[in-house]
Amino acid sequence: MAQKLDPWKSSEISDYSKLFDEFGIQPFEEVLDELPNPHKYMRRGIIFGHRGYDMIADAIHNKKPFVVLDGFMPTGKAHFGHKMVMDQIVWYQKQGGIVVIGMADREAHAVRGMSWEECKQIGVEEYITSLIALGLQPENARIYFQSECQPVKDLAFELGTKVNFSEMAAIYGFSGETHLSHMIAVLTQGADILHSQLPIYEGPIPVVVPVGADQDPHIRLTRDLASKMNLFLIERREDQKTGNSYWSVRGKGAPEDMFKEIDKNIRDGFGAAGVQTKLSKEHIDVFGDISETELSEIVKNVELAGGGYAFVLPASTYHRFMSGLTGGKMSSSIPDSNIALSEEPKAAAKKIMKAKTGGRESADEQRELGGEFDKCSVYELYLFHLVDDDNELIQIQNDCTGGKILCGECKKKAAGKMEIFLADLQQKREEAFEKLPMYGIDYQRNG
Amino acid sequence: MAQKLDPWKSSEISDYSKLFDEFGIQPFEEVLDELPNPHKYMRRGIIFGHRGYDMIADAIHNKKPFVVLDGFMPTGKAHFGHKMVMDQIVWYQKQGGIVVIGMADREAHAVRGMSWEECKQIGVEEYITSLIALGLQPENARIYFQSECQPVKDLAFELGTKVNFSEMAAIYGFSGETHLSHMIAVLTQGADILHSQLPIYEGPIPVVVPVGADQDPHIRLTRDLASKMNLFLIERREDQKTGNSYWSVRGKGAPEDMFKEIDKNIRDGFGAAGVQTKLSKEHIDVFGDISETELSEIVKNVELAGGGYAFVLPASTYHRFMSGLTGGKMSSSIPDSNIALSEEPKAAAKKIMKAKTGGRESADEQRELGGEFDKCSVYELYLFHLVDDDNELIQIQNDCTGGKILCGECKKKAAGKMEIFLADLQQKREEAFEKLPMYGIDYQRNG
Repeated sequence: MAQKLDPWKSSEISDYSKLFDEFGIQPFEEVLDELPNPHKYMRRGIIFGHRGYDMIADAIHNKKPFVVLDGFMPTGKAHFGHKMVMDQIVWYQKQGGIVVIGMADREAHAVRGMSWEECKQIGVEEYITSLIALGLQPENARIYFQSECQPVKDLAFELGTKVNFSEMAAIYGFSGETHLSHMIAVLTQGADILHSQLPIYEGPIPVVVPVGADQDPHIRLTRDLASKMNLFLIERREDQKTGNSYWSVRGKGAPEDMFKEIDKNIRDGFGAAGVQTKLSKEHIDVFGDISETELSEIVKNVELAGGGYAFVLPASTYHRFMSGLTGGKMSSSIPDSNIALSEEPKAAAKKIMKAKTGGRESADEQRELGGEFDKCSVYELYLFHLVDDDNELIQIQNDCTGGKILCGECKKKAAGKMEIFLADLQQKREEAFEKLPMYGIDYQRNG
Repeated sequence: MAQKLDPWKSSEISDYSKLFDEFGIQPFEEVLDELPNPHKYMRRGIIFGHRGYDMIADAIHNKKPFVVLDGFMPTGKAHFGHKMVMDQIVWYQKQGGIVVIGMADREAHAVRGMSWEECKQIGVEEYITSLIALGLQPENARIYFQSECQPVKDLAFELGTKVNFSEMAAIYGFSGETHLSHMIAVLTQGADILHSQLPIYEGPIPVVVPVGADQDPHIRLTRDLASKMNLFLIERREDQKTGNSYWSVRGKGAPEDMFKEIDKNIRDGFGAAGVQTKLSKEHIDVFGDISETELSEIVKNVELAGGGYAFVLPASTYHRFMSGLTGGKMSSSIPDSNIALSEEPKAAAKKIMKAKTGGRESADEQRELGGEFDKCSVYELYLFHLVDDDNELIQIQNDCTGGKILCGECKKKAAGKMEIFLADLQQKREEAFEKLPMYGIDYQRNG
């Protein structure tokens, strides 16, 4: 009988609980069952939270169009943390999503002082080739560098009309010393997330951004900006006297003509079905049998015709991070703590053989008490990257806790899997250079 | 015998003296004699100050290439204050200058909340047609809207890596409430001034920006940014022991290779003439007979070849403002205080007939004491706009101070000149619509 996979001690989950309580992130398990074919990161609780994901689950389930968007800052080597995001992107593409990838060279240039040429080289050679090697297909994929994408840059300026310095400072810790281009780079990330909804691309469409939990401030800011850019807000209200509920369409400086047009379209479309409206200068109340989707569609079309954006607020998912191989966080300043996707396979294997595990003081003790996989960075490699089959992962857990396998043997097994994975990936990364034109990337490799 | 024109009481000049003392603006009269054919604003002391104008006078005198740049924010009607700038632009074009005009729609949109369409309409119908009507020729003229000019927008981002929030706040009074796009609009003005020096346009070239005295903070910021963008600084130094002077070429994070290249080029070009160098890691000292121009040329070429900007610091001139017709400042909230270039000629004449003059309490008193032209807004109309001939202006002064003409008659004369001027200008503004394509402006007039 299949055992239920429980990859975490419940105590560890609590690290993230304040994200649910204080910041309004929703638990991902609430939407998990709506997905026909969830990714292993979803099944295993690695992706633990979301905002607004219902529309994405609906789009996947009902084969409606949606976009998956992510950005990569091209400043260093692509590593297994980036692979987590790339794996999700490839999965969404298989679920029917349109993939949009932004190379955040504006941030790399403004904040890290890298030249545009360095950004291009690292972006292509580290990130784009890795994405292709991990399975990204050219159909329904668009990859761009921020510095070369005018609609993104122009939208960033537009978003800047809706946020002031104090707000940015509160979110990002900006001070008087912060250079202006650093602020513009942050606006550009908002534009990365929203620009696929511009009329020249897909128009209003659900977008999901898979990120690590630390990226939620970006997502909150961008959802807030999208809402501020929109001309209308639709809310369910209740009449205090009668207790009857109705829809309220409120405007934020929208021209009066648009209200009249929306009012007319509701009455033309749904008046025969008994829907009634009350039009005021700054809002419309809508009574009767009309769904939010039907109403949104009317409002959206009027807003778009009048040159508005009608953005759908972007959705997001949040994943946990792997620990570093040396214990603690992964850090590029501790080379043994992490493995780059371009790392020589034998060197990567050596790092695993030196990794921190959940082993006991002695072999005898471990055979008696079993190992502690939830404290083991090698187990995390299996959990996140090296084992796709949940049953195999459960077997590894059981062998560990039952004391059947000791850490040396277990590390050797992981190191072997890692060598095979990296050798294969690097072969594919080499081949990816030939495929770049299929992805619209014009790049000449040096040397 | 010709009387020297003295259009101002000396007391009034002192209003601007702190600009000389505190902010380092130079008196324009110092460079006046270098100009073969000075504009009446220059002869009359209306243009009273400058920064770095020697290179512009030199370019005009010796027929070398230079750029005149100005920006107009397309938010309202073009009036006689704008005409002052436009007159100067047309004059510089006649002196051989390349005219570059930026329509500051980014500021109008971000700060004044105007739509891009409104910006375009006002920009063309108010400002560009007026420029053409006032004599701008299509050859050697480039007019652009900021929102449509990618090199300007990209340079604005680049400039933003060199200025932080505190610096902007100190110059422009920004606070935490200031929206980010407001800041970006200011950066874009800097890019307006500097972008003509990009390799895709003219490359490093002298640029002059004719502005009102209130615009000096922009100029100072832009000169500062240009200097920060440049990789090298050339200064004259003195050896403290020997008292001999030499050139110092200092780098600001420039690569070592560039120093070696500069050092080599100096020795190759001037070594035979006895010029010697001392190369250190971050600077080169240059001894012997080499001019700043010769040295700058070597440094510039190496900087450009290495992808740097080598900006020439932009020059500027500063002009006084006309008083409002009702006394005090011109203000768009006091319609009678100013006249738009599109104003109906009869209506403009009426405003002049109601204008504040330097007249006495009674006709008798005025015949006896004479009028005070330096307190008269009608005299300012002659001085700034309605009289090109200095002798005619002196005659007007004399008739006024001698009590030969009373204010009513004088106003009638000015009103007559204004009617003729406006009728002619408006005819030319109408014709300008047909000529827009010659200036690269794609615009469809409504109605």
